[in-house]
Amino acid sequence: MNKVTQDQIKVQKIGTSKIDQVDFNKLLFGKDFSDHMFECDYIDGKWQNPTIRPFGPLTLSPAAKVFHYGQAVFEGMKAYKDDNGKVFLFRPDENQKRINKSAVRMAIPEFPEALFFEALHKLIDLDRDWIKPGNGNSLYLRPFVMATQAGVSASPSDEYKFMILMSPAQAYYTGDVRVVIAEHYSRSSNGGVGAAKAAGNYGAQFYPTNLAREKGFQQVIWTDSDEHKYLEEAGTMNVFFRINDTLITAPISDRILDGVTRKSVIALAEKEGIPIEVRPVLVSEIVAAAKNGTLKEIFGAGTAAVISPVSAFGYKEDVYELPSTDGGYSTKFKKALMDIQYNRSEDTFGWRYEI
Amino acid sequence: MNKVTQDQIKVQKIGTSKIDQVDFNKLLFGKDFSDHMFECDYIDGKWQNPTIRPFGPLTLSPAAKVFHYGQAVFEGMKAYKDDNGKVFLFRPDENQKRINKSAVRMAIPEFPEALFFEALHKLIDLDRDWIKPGNGNSLYLRPFVMATQAGVSASPSDEYKFMILMSPAQAYYTGDVRVVIAEHYSRSSNGGVGAAKAAGNYGAQFYPTNLAREKGFQQVIWTDSDEHKYLEEAGTMNVFFRINDTLITAPISDRILDGVTRKSVIALAEKEGIPIEVRPVLVSEIVAAAKNGTLKEIFGAGTAAVISPVSAFGYKEDVYELPSTDGGYSTKFKKALMDIQYNRSEDTFGWRYEI
Repeated sequence: MNKVTQDQIKVQKIGTSKIDQVDFNKLLFGKDFSDHMFECDYIDGKWQNPTIRPFGPLTLSPAAKVFHYGQAVFEGMKAYKDDNGKVFLFRPDENQKRINKSAVRMAIPEFPEALFFEALHKLIDLDRDWIKPGNGNSLYLRPFVMATQAGVSASPSDEYKFMILMSPAQAYYTGDVRVVIAEHYSRSSNGGVGAAKAAGNYGAQFYPTNLAREKGFQQVIWTDSDEHKYLEEAGTMNVFFRINDTLITAPISDRILDGVTRKSVIALAEKEGIPIEVRPVLVSEIVAAAKNGTLKEIFGAGTAAVISPVSAFGYKEDVYELPSTDGGYSTKFKKALMDIQYNRSEDTFGWRYEI
Repeated sequence: MNKVTQDQIKVQKIGTSKIDQVDFNKLLFGKDFSDHMFECDYIDGKWQNPTIRPFGPLTLSPAAKVFHYGQAVFEGMKAYKDDNGKVFLFRPDENQKRINKSAVRMAIPEFPEALFFEALHKLIDLDRDWIKPGNGNSLYLRPFVMATQAGVSASPSDEYKFMILMSPAQAYYTGDVRVVIAEHYSRSSNGGVGAAKAAGNYGAQFYPTNLAREKGFQQVIWTDSDEHKYLEEAGTMNVFFRINDTLITAPISDRILDGVTRKSVIALAEKEGIPIEVRPVLVSEIVAAAKNGTLKEIFGAGTAAVISPVSAFGYKEDVYELPSTDGGYSTKFKKALMDIQYNRSEDTFGWRYEI
């Protein structure tokens, strides 16, 4: 991966930083934003006017297609600071490729790779102070693209805006994560947009997730829309199951997001010699394993939460409590990933990317 | 349906109308907007500040949830003017109910029925001159709701904006409509949001529709995501098939939009004594009927196009040309619907709603 040296991004710096207004010990995820943001417009068939300016409002037509047709995709990434003040991204090439893959599926023009990295470098460098060292602290990066052309005919936009926002974050989940296995609602289907980080995939999950919350679960593990027989992903994270010593996760498909944390866990497992099976996961086998005591762990893997151990899952009328995961695979993978992210261990995979 | 008499909407009138800048004989669908628009914000748990103001830009945070999570729903309606200058909507109660049904599925608060109608009345009345009489002319209305809270955590917004935009329209489709039957991509699935007019449902169709266009088709007829065996809807319209003298259309489900034009066609067919079957429609039976000459018509039904006769459909490697539909069901239903919409026939169903 080459660092970009071209210098075409216009930079308008903030007058006075807002950093003193933020309590970094009481961050709510995704609520506060750093001093600057990046934006670039697609007009007349090309990306133009890449600009870094103070985080602030946008002015858009109420007929902008993003409002009407959800033509928008995004990414989630994090910047980490080590104890010496060095700043790293984790596998940003994966996010760069994926936002363009998502864009293609949503009929959005791809964003140039070199400009993506140049924007990340300049933007993160400007707001370096917003990245706090210390385990769990990060600067969450939100690249996204949306359709900005005004017009309410149901057809692809001719104009788009690519942006990167940055939001300081602490560890994403606290406490137990209880999940419920979907029996009625679904997230995606064959031939659909489930593998894309398309905006509408997320809004569509809010209602069924609210229903789950009313029953005491934080997230839904989605199943296939056809028969609800196979476990897929949890909407904001991929899901891993440990039966005895074997780790199992569903294969990616056009229904399941190709998660960066997911593929990193698989690579770590292979390196550690942990038996791993990437194959369709039956609900019935997980329920049976929970009943006979061979289900040792369930955990989610995603950028926001890194690794989220699941403490219980609900299915039909029953709730299955899982053993405590102290010392389990989730603890091991979380530590291994964070040691790489915070530059505390050797980066044998070449996943760190210094800014 | 009671007309609303309460008077709580603030009105800021435009200084000088833009109507002279619009060529009403060369309208592109959804491109020009009338002088005024309606907006109302959901803040602190209630809808407030309903306002009509000149059509113009919005100022939103780049972190507004609609950009990131597609939490947005919309409706499409039309206002028609008869030769005496009276203005009518067509079954607006159906749109009012449906936008709230869509909202519930997308975890968006419902918009009050009385305020919906009061807004329609005041807004249309202000921009009455934008509605031209004459067959095919209308003012297209676009009510929509979107999530406006700033924050990139994947959870429902606490703040929303409901708006109504109005765009002068002529007949939507001109020329032949050629459709292709989906064999790989899909629009929706059981347990998903296909029955909601959710923004993301439309953006997700753009890419497969582009692929269809490259092969000479204007629209895709979607099939079930599981086996692509059953014909469902065409994304911006429901679809009817005529085999011999029998009209056939798919039942509504959580994958298929409960179209107002669709249900009006069914009611008209029943009144006219046309045999109609509302049941799952196999791709194979339509292909067989095309081959043996019993497939007389295919047409789409939707607000934008009213009735769109289909001249040919593609399936696998073959293209099936359909007989000319002059004098067929599509011509009959289009005339019957437009005669009601333009106040040229008796309104036995009570579908007209005068503004």
